[in-house]
This record gives sequence, structure tokens and C-alpha cells, in this order.
Amino acid sequence: MRVMIVGANGEVGRLLVAQLLANGDEPIAGLRADEDGEDLEDQGIAVRRVDLLAKPERIASTLMDAEAVIFAAGSGGRTKDDMTLLIDLDGAVKTMQAAEIAGVKRFMMISMLFAEDRNRWADPLKPLYVAKFYADNWLVHQTHLAYTIVQPGALSFHAGTGKVQSDPLAVGSIPRADLAAFMVAALHAPQTIGKTIPLLSGEQPIQTVIDQL
Amino acid sequence: MRVMIVGANGEVGRLLVAQLLANGDEPIAGLRADEDGEDLEDQGIAVRRVDLLAKPERIASTLMDAEAVIFAAGSGGRTKDDMTLLIDLDGAVKTMQAAEIAGVKRFMMISMLFAEDRNRWADPLKPLYVAKFYADNWLVHQTHLAYTIVQPGALSFHAGTGKVQSDPLAVGSIPRADLAAFMVAALHAPQTIGKTIPLLSGEQPIQTVIDQL
Repeated sequence: MRVMIVGANGEVGRLLVAQLLANGDEPIAGLRADEDGEDLEDQGIAVRRVDLLAKPERIASTLMDAEAVIFAAGSGGRTKDDMTLLIDLDGAVKTMQAAEIAGVKRFMMISMLFAEDRNRWADPLKPLYVAKFYADNWLVHQTHLAYTIVQPGALSFHAGTGKVQSDPLAVGSIPRADLAAFMVAALHAPQTIGKTIPLLSGEQPIQTVIDQL
Repeated sequence: MRVMIVGANGEVGRLLVAQLLANGDEPIAGLRADEDGEDLEDQGIAVRRVDLLAKPERIASTLMDAEAVIFAAGSGGRTKDDMTLLIDLDGAVKTMQAAEIAGVKRFMMISMLFAEDRNRWADPLKPLYVAKFYADNWLVHQTHLAYTIVQPGALSFHAGTGKVQSDPLAVGSIPRADLAAFMVAALHAPQTIGKTIPLLSGEQPIQTVIDQL
């Protein structure tokens, strides 16, 4: 599947590109204008410049031949400037609108655990939760996209184990590599469409958890 | 009418309190915990502490006997901290949810001119536009409140003239006193329910403009 990864230079984005390639998919790396994409191009990966501060129509022009979009961009926890509002919220929503303009139906969103439950939002991440909440809400209520929202716990740099859980009451962390592997598997699993899925490290293989959704 | 003004100590909020009183309404002044409400209490005005960082249920407890809510709070243009997200967006939405919990149907929102048109958003106010856009959107699409959204142009401290216009294509400013007078008149005008109304200084009396809506 030809998949645009918005935020392909991020910590999760890089893993997504690699795992999509390994899975036989065709990743398109969406980078900011100021990011270096040379090593991606050297691997034969298409690189496109995606400006999340631009209008949806402009973002749509980068999605025209994609079959799916994964939104993996983020302001990088810089909650003390406007980027939480402009990227994590409005940038995400503009990407959804761009996908609709470009006719790309499948949309994968990387959100945060408990983004839908204001009672669980804690400082210092509260502003990011607010942004994620309204972005996820838009995807569910104000688009007709075939979406999957994945809400991982705290992201770690530990090696992936391939074992996860999706217990809506659990709290914990997950290696970025396992999040990326779950996203790729979920992309190809129609039963994840229209679902919001909490995700943590666990005891079950990724495919088993997806099959039970 | 018994009306809670959230943000009653703000520049527009103070005018709203005075004009509601003059109109024979019963304003309830919603202030932050750290704001001085003594001069309001000396005028016999009920003062309540409204914490927009608290949960909707907590905000609802301040609205129980109100017949309407006017959201006049704002982060004060402090777009370079989290308050745009936490107050102008999430604080506004929590106040809407609080009104629904408390059974207060009538909800008046002070928004910004062109908040619904991303093509018109310009720096340095862009983050505030983002917040206002999603707050207004929630009010329209995700509540059952009897809302009126007023979208004034640039607010000035000029004396009120009592003359306004509501041309969706016009650009300009409006004295805060005229905005407040319009809000009070619109509160009592059922034809403003369910409407989003641009508002600028103009040539027609406020009541004439409202009668034409």
C-alpha cells in the first residue's frame, strides 16, 4: 500500500518508514522543508515536503496518489509555544481535510493514551492532551475518513518485543518500535477502521490483539 | 434574566455586568479565585469563583440557578503560553459542557471575526483563531445549547455609538461598549439563537440589526 507518513523524520516516523518498507508497503516520507531527507532518498524512498502550517489544499497536493495517511507528526512536546495548537491540533485537522480533498480514505492517527478522558490529563502534558482530544474528536465526528486512532501509553526507546495489550483501563508504556509495528499491522486490518485503540506493552502478539478487536 | 458572565473582570466582562444591570437583568459575576470582586459585591452583584482549569462538573456548580451564560473570558492574548489552549479552547468547551450539566440552555459566546475562515487567520493572532475556531465548532456541532456566537472585529476602547453592522464580508473594529450592548440585546432576541454573527461598527442601531437577523 502506498502510504504517506506525515512526520516521517520523527522518532516514530522513521520506524514507520522502515517497517512499512519491510512489510512490502510503499512509504512516502512527509518531511518539513527544513529536514534532511537525503538518507531516505538514498534508500529509494519518495520524499515530499509537507507544511502543516499551510492550507489543507496545499497539504492535499502531497497526498494525491497515496492510499493511506499516517499522522505521526508532533510538536515534540514543545507545549510552551504555539506549535501545540498549530501542529498537534490544527495541523492534524488540516491533514484530515487534505486527505478528504485528495480522496484518500484511510487515515491512521497516533494519539495519546486517555486523550478522550479529561479526568486523566495531567501536567505537564495537559496542553498536548487538549490538542490531541480535539484532533481525535474532529476525526471521529467531522470527517468521513476510514480512521483508526491509536492511543499509546508513554513512549520508550526500549527494543520492540512484538507483544502488546489494548486494555482501556491499563496504564504504562510501550516501545516506539512496537507502536510502529502495531500501526503497520492495523493499517492492513479493516476491523480497526472506526476504532480508537489504547495501546501498551503486553503479553500478546500484535496480530492476536488486532484479531480480537 | 439571571446571567452568569464568565470572565466578568475582563474589559468586555465589566461592561457586560454594567449593561445587564442597566437593562434590568441580574448579572452574576464569574471571576477567577485571584481576582478582586469587592467593588462588584459593593454594588450588590453576586460574585462567584469560576475556575476554567477545573472539571465541567465543578464549573457547573456555579451555574445552577443561572438562566443564561455569557462566555467573555479569554487568555488575554497571551498566545505564547498554554492558556490559549487551556482557557480559550478547553475552558470555553468545559463551560459549554457545564451549562448542559446545569441545565442552562442559553449560551452566548464572544468569538472573533473570521474565526470560521482559516484563510483569514493572520499572525500574531493565529493561535487564538485556532482556539476560537474549535470552541465555536464544538458549540455548533457538539452541544444542544441555544447558542449565539458573536464574532466582533478588532476591539477598541472608543466610546460606544450604539451603531453596528453585521456584514459577513466587512473588516474593521468595534468599541467594546457596543459589543457588550449587542450581547445584551442579542441575549433577549430569540432570532439570534443558532446564529453566528459577525459584528463591526456601522450605521444602524443595534436593535435594527438584530431585528433583521
